[in-house]
Amino acid sequence: MSETASQTSDALHDAVQAQARAARQAATALARASGQTRQAALLAVAAAIEANAADLVATNRLDVEAARARDLAPALVDRLELTPERINGMADGVRQVAMLDDPVGEISAVRQQPSGLRIGQMRVPLGVIGIIYESRPNVTADAAALCLKAGNATLLRGGSEAHNSNRAIGELIQTGLREAGLPAESVQLIETTDRAAVGAMLAQDDLIDVIIPRGGKGLIERVSRDTRIPVLKHLDGVCHVYIDADADLEMAERIAFDAKTYRYGICGAMETLLVHKGVAAEALPGLAARLATKDVELRGCARTCAILDNAIPATDADWAEEFLGPILAVRVVDDIDDAIEHISRWGSQHTDAIVSNNHHKIERFLREVDSASVMVNAPTCFADGFEYGLGAEIGISTGKLHARGPVGVQGLTTQKFVVYGDGQTRGA
Amino acid sequence: MSETASQTSDALHDAVQAQARAARQAATALARASGQTRQAALLAVAAAIEANAADLVATNRLDVEAARARDLAPALVDRLELTPERINGMADGVRQVAMLDDPVGEISAVRQQPSGLRIGQMRVPLGVIGIIYESRPNVTADAAALCLKAGNATLLRGGSEAHNSNRAIGELIQTGLREAGLPAESVQLIETTDRAAVGAMLAQDDLIDVIIPRGGKGLIERVSRDTRIPVLKHLDGVCHVYIDADADLEMAERIAFDAKTYRYGICGAMETLLVHKGVAAEALPGLAARLATKDVELRGCARTCAILDNAIPATDADWAEEFLGPILAVRVVDDIDDAIEHISRWGSQHTDAIVSNNHHKIERFLREVDSASVMVNAPTCFADGFEYGLGAEIGISTGKLHARGPVGVQGLTTQKFVVYGDGQTRGA
Repeated sequence: MSETASQTSDALHDAVQAQARAARQAATALARASGQTRQAALLAVAAAIEANAADLVATNRLDVEAARARDLAPALVDRLELTPERINGMADGVRQVAMLDDPVGEISAVRQQPSGLRIGQMRVPLGVIGIIYESRPNVTADAAALCLKAGNATLLRGGSEAHNSNRAIGELIQTGLREAGLPAESVQLIETTDRAAVGAMLAQDDLIDVIIPRGGKGLIERVSRDTRIPVLKHLDGVCHVYIDADADLEMAERIAFDAKTYRYGICGAMETLLVHKGVAAEALPGLAARLATKDVELRGCARTCAILDNAIPATDADWAEEFLGPILAVRVVDDIDDAIEHISRWGSQHTDAIVSNNHHKIERFLREVDSASVMVNAPTCFADGFEYGLGAEIGISTGKLHARGPVGVQGLTTQKFVVYGDGQTRGA
Repeated sequence: MSETASQTSDALHDAVQAQARAARQAATALARASGQTRQAALLAVAAAIEANAADLVATNRLDVEAARARDLAPALVDRLELTPERINGMADGVRQVAMLDDPVGEISAVRQQPSGLRIGQMRVPLGVIGIIYESRPNVTADAAALCLKAGNATLLRGGSEAHNSNRAIGELIQTGLREAGLPAESVQLIETTDRAAVGAMLAQDDLIDVIIPRGGKGLIERVSRDTRIPVLKHLDGVCHVYIDADADLEMAERIAFDAKTYRYGICGAMETLLVHKGVAAEALPGLAARLATKDVELRGCARTCAILDNAIPATDADWAEEFLGPILAVRVVDDIDDAIEHISRWGSQHTDAIVSNNHHKIERFLREVDSASVMVNAPTCFADGFEYGLGAEIGISTGKLHARGPVGVQGLTTQKFVVYGDGQTRGA
């Protein structure tokens, strides 16, 4: 590295560290603030976003035009764009988060121990949360709102293509914070367009408590590789529906069709259908016909292809693939063991469902399938924080520690032990 | 690296990976096994340890003699030694874990959502747990028992100086597993004395779900640095007792004395005493006299030294130090804000206590001190899984995610969402 590059990199590291320190400071103030104050700040943020919608559209146009000039794919340009409608949606989202129950301060499971001490657990903020995300500017408001609701300070690093929009939204958030008497540093953007800023952020393991990457697999893998900070992450959603021999086949068709076609692009969309050999010949043709109305391509195992003329032979790669589109892998299995084994081998521990009326098999599936969500007689596309009653979600974790599945405000908190004594001692 | 070294290293990596794969396989069987079976296995392990106590002592003698021949420090040789009494203690410990409530399978917080789905959370094993520890051979039985109780498979890597003892204990554990009809691979030792085995273990992020290092700071830092697997770790225990202006001073003296002297070597021992300036002159002399009976050295701030003749001036390094011995840092603070700030700056987020009868100050301390355990009118040395009613502990986590403070069997499990439907769909 040349001396100049190394100096720039040191300067960048220092700048990011200074922001992280300010965030840590703000986190202390947030831990002291009442839930009412945090709620007031969020409502002020929502109002500021609405009041400045026109300016926001204008600023956003800079990003959109730059993206078009750089020939960004239309789908990416669309993600980038803030319409008045999307801005209202963003403000509504912040308001909804404001109105959620305050997760902070709850004390649970207090029990008196033989020593006479009463010991329980208090729910508290995590501290400083780093969010690294890609092109959608609305993530700036959504993520900051959830973190703030849970009493955390946030360091946000958005995609460079949304640079202007993110900065404008960040300023409105800080306006809301100030109005409520909270430190503006409670929500900070890492603003430099220098790509090394992410690395500088990932190095702050003394100051940042958790990193949440939101974006493609490349981003998530890079973040996991390059930091010692705990990472709440979402990897693949290779979700399965297993139609058991004891399924109501009409219900099974409805569930499988919905799991595939409700929305192709969500991580809870079914990617592989497993069907018990005893009902495959009866269940598959009707479902295939229905999926054909949506032009869903079927890739089947040999037994599937023997039943369905329009299925093309699947390869092993298809079992591992998250298609996120109108393609479905289909496999006929011998029994529930075969189904569970397939899911264990090829699945991504995200969301898997069984359709069955057999109590014993349902219990086995629920217990033995090691995924963040296991479902009975429901389509996998229900895997979502709103549907789960969490109010909102920062993401869906496919990790096992801390938070698994859809993560709401509670997943952005932790618990500490609280011990109430009256002068007890351990020594004689 | 020479070709031979590289081949050895590849072979080692493959061997460790094969063990991790076998552990993953065993974890699936454990997830299927009933709590009764896991309990029976643990009772069989305890019986096997007791029945083979004499052999165990003989095998252990090999390690002890080798350690003496290598001039290992007497304290380390003592840690290594298994007496008949310690072996009985080990068997009793396994039996106690066997009798704990089964943490697996509990379904909580099931609520019906607007969609009609009933959604709750089921407690399940984490999967495969890697334990890396130093010289005490009893950790082999303790850690394996806790992991097994929670339904996890375990890969154990103990210190090379306890090699023979660990292998013998590992064989007895596998005997117990087989007797109960569980796979012997549920608990495996990484047996090679090659130091690179730890690195090979840390590379198995596809197969190991969590790593728990138990040992000195060097070990824990190395493990955190070298793996992408989530780590449950315990760093320093720089614990504080703050004597507030509104404290019962007799109680304060009792608590501070106990927090320091109950046992110097535990992580919950008080290392720094903070005293409100308004009561310092009254509180400190009596406590100092009592600590003098135990030859505790006092290192004080200027105001402390003005009160106590026998205190020597403290340096900044003393505020950050985990003495683990008969030394205490003492600082007079202006008020509770000053105390909280000191703890925030110098503490290790382990365990901190306030002695006070002022409700408002107690509430502030509990809420604002960001430590795994916060205590009121109790000495910090109570920070312990047994005292907290957890039955046993795998360690005390100073991290914030997943498990904070003493970690018992519940901390070795995770929760997955269970969704019960009746054919509901999200589409029209």
